[in-house]
Amino acid sequence: MKSKNNPGNYFEDFVLGQELRHATPRTITSGDVALYTALYGPRFAVQASAEFARNIGFHDAPIDDLLVFHMVFGKTVPDVSLNAVANLGYAGGVFGVPVYAGDTVSTVSRVIGLKENSNGKTGVVYVNSVGRNQHGEMVVDYNRWVMVNKHNPDAPAPETFVPDLPSVVDPASFKIPVGLDLSGYDCTLAGSAHFWDDYAIGEKIDHVDGMTLEEAEHQMATRLYQNTAKVHFDQVSANQGRFGKRLIYGGHVMSLARALAFNGLGNAFRILAINAGSHANPAFAGNTVFAWSEVIDKFDIPGRNDVGAMRVRLVAVRDRAAADFPLRDDAGKYDSAVLLDFDHTVLIPKRP
Amino acid sequence: MKSKNNPGNYFEDFVLGQELRHATPRTITSGDVALYTALYGPRFAVQASAEFARNIGFHDAPIDDLLVFHMVFGKTVPDVSLNAVANLGYAGGVFGVPVYAGDTVSTVSRVIGLKENSNGKTGVVYVNSVGRNQHGEMVVDYNRWVMVNKHNPDAPAPETFVPDLPSVVDPASFKIPVGLDLSGYDCTLAGSAHFWDDYAIGEKIDHVDGMTLEEAEHQMATRLYQNTAKVHFDQVSANQGRFGKRLIYGGHVMSLARALAFNGLGNAFRILAINAGSHANPAFAGNTVFAWSEVIDKFDIPGRNDVGAMRVRLVAVRDRAAADFPLRDDAGKYDSAVLLDFDHTVLIPKRP
Amino acid sequence: MKSKNNPGNYFEDFVLGQELRHATPRTITSGDVALYTALYGPRFAVQASAEFARNIGFHDAPIDDLLVFHMVFGKTVPDVSLNAVANLGYAGGVFGVPVYAGDTVSTVSRVIGLKENSNGKTGVVYVNSVGRNQHGEMVVDYNRWVMVNKHNPDAPAPETFVPDLPSVVDPASFKIPVGLDLSGYDCTLAGSAHFWDDYAIGEKIDHVDGMTLEEAEHQMATRLYQNTAKVHFDQVSANQGRFGKRLIYGGHVMSLARALAFNGLGNAFRILAINAGSHANPAFAGNTVFAWSEVIDKFDIPGRNDVGAMRVRLVAVRDRAAADFPLRDDAGKYDSAVLLDFDHTVLIPKRP
Repeated sequence: MKSKNNPGNYFEDFVLGQELRHATPRTITSGDVALYTALYGPRFAVQASAEFARNIGFHDAPIDDLLVFHMVFGKTVPDVSLNAVANLGYAGGVFGVPVYAGDTVSTVSRVIGLKENSNGKTGVVYVNSVGRNQHGEMVVDYNRWVMVNKHNPDAPAPETFVPDLPSVVDPASFKIPVGLDLSGYDCTLAGSAHFWDDYAIGEKIDHVDGMTLEEAEHQMATRLYQNTAKVHFDQVSANQGRFGKRLIYGGHVMSLARALAFNGLGNAFRILAINAGSHANPAFAGNTVFAWSEVIDKFDIPGRNDVGAMRVRLVAVRDRAAADFPLRDDAGKYDSAVLLDFDHTVLIPKRP
Repeated sequence: MKSKNNPGNYFEDFVLGQELRHATPRTITSGDVALYTALYGPRFAVQASAEFARNIGFHDAPIDDLLVFHMVFGKTVPDVSLNAVANLGYAGGVFGVPVYAGDTVSTVSRVIGLKENSNGKTGVVYVNSVGRNQHGEMVVDYNRWVMVNKHNPDAPAPETFVPDLPSVVDPASFKIPVGLDLSGYDCTLAGSAHFWDDYAIGEKIDHVDGMTLEEAEHQMATRLYQNTAKVHFDQVSANQGRFGKRLIYGGHVMSLARALAFNGLGNAFRILAINAGSHANPAFAGNTVFAWSEVIDKFDIPGRNDVGAMRVRLVAVRDRAAADFPLRDDAGKYDSAVLLDFDHTVLIPKRP
Repeated sequence: MKSKNNPGNYFEDFVLGQELRHATPRTITSGDVALYTALYGPRFAVQASAEFARNIGFHDAPIDDLLVFHMVFGKTVPDVSLNAVANLGYAGGVFGVPVYAGDTVSTVSRVIGLKENSNGKTGVVYVNSVGRNQHGEMVVDYNRWVMVNKHNPDAPAPETFVPDLPSVVDPASFKIPVGLDLSGYDCTLAGSAHFWDDYAIGEKIDHVDGMTLEEAEHQMATRLYQNTAKVHFDQVSANQGRFGKRLIYGGHVMSLARALAFNGLGNAFRILAINAGSHANPAFAGNTVFAWSEVIDKFDIPGRNDVGAMRVRLVAVRDRAAADFPLRDDAGKYDSAVLLDFDHTVLIPKRP
């Protein structure tokens, strides 16, 4: 009898155009929000206060964008990356309608690209994943590509198709929450006096604070997202591996860096887009994470003068302060302290 | 003045037929559910998604059965097992009406058996514990027996009475949730293609994944259940003890094994009964838990062809994979890697 | 361009009478309550059960008083104590209307005293902080004083003003929850047979149980409160510091001691006042916390014979049992095992 556990998909199991309806639709609750707050310490008033959120046109405090992202991402793991060697990149990520406590998010992915590696042992799978709420409205839509093992090295290579993914999300794709009205925005309660107008392209910001990672924390986070990747949980396997340690889910570092970024970007309360992202080095328990940001670009939002968008590179580093903005060496290789290079676009109020 | 802290009951304090109304009725919330998800990573769609649950006849996503069990069990500890030496067994456990977020569960136990040990220092106390919701409806009803210290070795032994407990719960006792209708059951969203029909008696399933236990995690779990047993929390006492370490609540391993069992038993979304359970060896932080299951028996549910029941032995092992299904040595003694041998009955859809 | 991160206020930045509207209003949810339960294990039935709470006149289970306190305290940190050397004391703390899940708490502080130290490098800042719910009703109002660094040692000293703070909160200031009616109070479900009448002034109570502190736990707690003090989170900085370890937020020990105090003070379900508090020694992960209490005084509540108040000294100690009630040495110095000396006033039912 065939074993009933899930072996995951290997590279040869993916077919271009294939649709993957992922298991475990997830009702997101205020309990998930409390855990997210406890795990990362975000301080954006919009997500923390139902009153504040209603004052600017939300129905309730919206769920943190990256919590939504992780919930959706986690659901793709058993079908997409259970046999992955590496998570290679993200592109074209857009956040849709706000998610509120009580909403249920379901995820569907489509295989949009395949490329076997020349070693014949692995290949790159490109997927577009879309999370939708119980009304069918898109909450997040993004592309990622992963290197996945072949189970049978003799399986024939599929026709190579590498999708044309944008290097930056077009401002025309941004979804501004319906009803958003920043006339009631209170920047004292929000905790920052700095508006869109105050940031310069090229400006770098040290987010100052450091947070030390613990095994119990990243495991709880990753299970909260129902992300089943073995490398985060199993020390017995880790003992046989390259690092001898459990690897921390890259999204855990992403959320921690985003929470640290409040200290300098306190009004950037909404992520509009994920342009690109690299997990430059693996993170482990015991690492202390610092972060810095660079403003890469600024955009007007058509038809609005109360908010603007900023493209921001958010960099997480470990075990050293970020005041000198470490990124790459002269050869273009990531500094060994860099954990994450996250290129995203945020919504931020304009000065009234 | 007599000290006002609770000394707990000693063996000589229990009386056959005695009723114990336990303290701290507990409103179970979506916050408890989020923590449960973060601690174990369960992926059953019924408990994770209000939409999915409503589609098969629940009012909302029901609370995980073992979370209900732990909440009830925890309340019995200050009265039943504060002076316990060992938790010896479980029998005749039945889950009743579903519990939903917002329900308040209260627990009452009755002493159903007493047997002093020949050493005159300890005795075995048998209790039947029943958790009820705010409407008085039974949510879980189970028996357990514990070895409890005597405070005064000279206290006279009570008359021995050993209750007649079933070795397996009679299918006639199963409580199928009212309104359950599996015609809308979506096995893709549930994450498993395997129905009741697909499992064979005697079949063994390796649940593959391993999870490493952390002190912060088991402490948070055990406090969430308001289980006050000292051995789980106090390293100063542990330093004087046999193991030198804090002992992990046996129910923590039970929930972790159940969550791991999703990988192979993904449609077994409801526990109907607890037939028996042994905590074969103590678990400690740093242990990595793996699990396997064996289908012991299969039952039809009278009057229904959409669901069936399966009696399953769920075994948790530590620090080694479970692919070879370790259980006992030739002498019948539990393998030293075995943490839990949990004999329970699950509800699972039949193939439509 | 001036850096956009928050440098915090230095001693010379504070002005007597200055009002500080703190950032991040916070909607407190049942998720926060679940985390609080998991972190400390409180067992007071009023906070744990909506049914029990309604039976004595609350609308719902009220949020634990210290959870409210920490939420308010946390919000003051970025403005008041980011550059603090030490948290020196508390006085005149009063809890107001009950907070329920779904309420949003905002915090405003006023500078009520300033005193530069003779070394010219630091000064003491006294603030009165008030948390209010979304209706503007006071939920907690307390004073604290902290020693804060000067940024510029040459900044002129402000005029010294030391406020006149009470050593104990006047019973006339107590806020008894409107509608409270203890005729339905069930002391079996509450878990304690001891009423106001049963405690004697001078009585000491050993709370018996010990709990070992973990890094992941105190970090999650402190982030839940959105308390940003760096010393709790950053091991890289800690490595350069006096202790080489992350310091645990004093309020974490306060909540743990309060939860332990259930074992002996199980009916003292509400904190009316914080009279004073000292964090006698720093706490670190790995410490095991024990607690004891002393009844300092007892008060009638005017116009009521169902409840009374007791002033209680709650002492947390580490790495040793509290059965001999350690506090100070002969010279009046705190015993090195003492972590917290917390002088507060609790509400407790009178014997019917």
